[in-house]
Amino acid sequence: MNYPNTPSLPSIVLIGAGNLAVNLAKALYRNGYHIEQVYSRTREAARALSQCVAAEYTNSLASLTSHADLYITALTDRALPHLLPDIVAGREQALFVHTAGSIDLNIWQGYAVRYGVFYPMQTFSKQRETDFREIPLFIESNSPEDCALLHTVASHLSRKVYTASSEQRRSLHLAAVFACNFSNCMYALAADILHEHDLPFEVMLPLIDETARKVHQLPPQQAQTGPAIRGDEAVMASHLDLLKAHPDLQELYQAISRQIKPSVKV
Amino acid sequence: MNYPNTPSLPSIVLIGAGNLAVNLAKALYRNGYHIEQVYSRTREAARALSQCVAAEYTNSLASLTSHADLYITALTDRALPHLLPDIVAGREQALFVHTAGSIDLNIWQGYAVRYGVFYPMQTFSKQRETDFREIPLFIESNSPEDCALLHTVASHLSRKVYTASSEQRRSLHLAAVFACNFSNCMYALAADILHEHDLPFEVMLPLIDETARKVHQLPPQQAQTGPAIRGDEAVMASHLDLLKAHPDLQELYQAISRQIKPSVKV
Repeated sequence: MNYPNTPSLPSIVLIGAGNLAVNLAKALYRNGYHIEQVYSRTREAARALSQCVAAEYTNSLASLTSHADLYITALTDRALPHLLPDIVAGREQALFVHTAGSIDLNIWQGYAVRYGVFYPMQTFSKQRETDFREIPLFIESNSPEDCALLHTVASHLSRKVYTASSEQRRSLHLAAVFACNFSNCMYALAADILHEHDLPFEVMLPLIDETARKVHQLPPQQAQTGPAIRGDEAVMASHLDLLKAHPDLQELYQAISRQIKPSVKV
Repeated sequence: MNYPNTPSLPSIVLIGAGNLAVNLAKALYRNGYHIEQVYSRTREAARALSQCVAAEYTNSLASLTSHADLYITALTDRALPHLLPDIVAGREQALFVHTAGSIDLNIWQGYAVRYGVFYPMQTFSKQRETDFREIPLFIESNSPEDCALLHTVASHLSRKVYTASSEQRRSLHLAAVFACNFSNCMYALAADILHEHDLPFEVMLPLIDETARKVHQLPPQQAQTGPAIRGDEAVMASHLDLLKAHPDLQELYQAISRQIKPSVKV
């Protein structure tokens, strides 16, 4: 690894204290970066995170320091446009990046001079620390110099750093919603079904693990198994019958089965 | 491990040569079981599998041996009821088990005297060998003695052996379809989206792995992340716009988002 704690490392302000902000701040801190300040709308969240990374904290954008080199926002996609003018104002020489999959680079245009995107494509929870070394980081900036700088910061955290346009990033984020958020929703629906029949969710874990491991080796289209791909209508009918108290799940079962095999009769 | 190759191990006939049959036959063979014969409708499939496990093979039920102790069917749920009478006829002293999640124990009733179920809850592909030690095996039989025998065989293959009623097994299978088959479908849809934008599926693997790992530690309901659970309608609207060439995927995106958070406006 290569992360000497030299004065050349940019000092950082983290704006946000949600799942992503917490994991990113800790990863930066562990890699020798000085987190000057943490901002969150909630004083408690700001304080909690600041204590983990030896930073100052504030819950007022008016108290945001103007001395940092790099301002990283990790806010909801709704909050960012509202807060952005106040984040930039009076700090026009700094570099500003957001961390959102779906937000265009140009959201900064007209406000900041130097700006970019620093998108870690991963699912973060506060309760679980994530190994940043394996997280794909997608970088974009309005200048080649800042793109190089962000690439350097990203490479200190992860082995998988890519440059990606805003358009590519939007597709990546949509794909990630399917591969991660929607898969997890399928786990949750499985957990509900098991719970309804007094069965523990743990029995599902070897299957979940193998399903994830398989697509390292086979494209997911080839890895597909189950009644839909086999066209096993008797099994699907018995599953729909089991779901008869949940018409929304019946519809979902049918819709996903048709994605697996468009010709399937379910 | 505990699997002495003694004469007391039942000799086995495998009926079927699909993904499950191949993986199960190999696991039994590796654990010292004598596979007497393999049957498949397709001569080629029967021969290929028989060579892996030093067995005879046939593609005619009329040529099925009558000398084995245990007959394991690994057929599609559609095929089993049709073939079952011919599988049992003339072998009434043997033990017959099927391997299907959704089929009742009693499908054997009126045909066989000794019968049961031997259900490995896993996703199998011929191209990938599976570590049976971690696969939950669910056992059922019409007699306590045969239940014990099946438990012994199962314990030679796996550390996770459970007794489960037909009703429980049906729910397990339905839950497995969500957790495995439908998750894999989500991976495939992500792969399609990435492919459409010339991005490699590999970038998705760390996210897929972490999504699976997370539910070892948190219940999936708590592990849920993404725009739907945050109620981030701007992101969801931009995703629906990206999917505008695929109305079926737009509908699916909306339906799953509503499962994640019923109150979400998408």
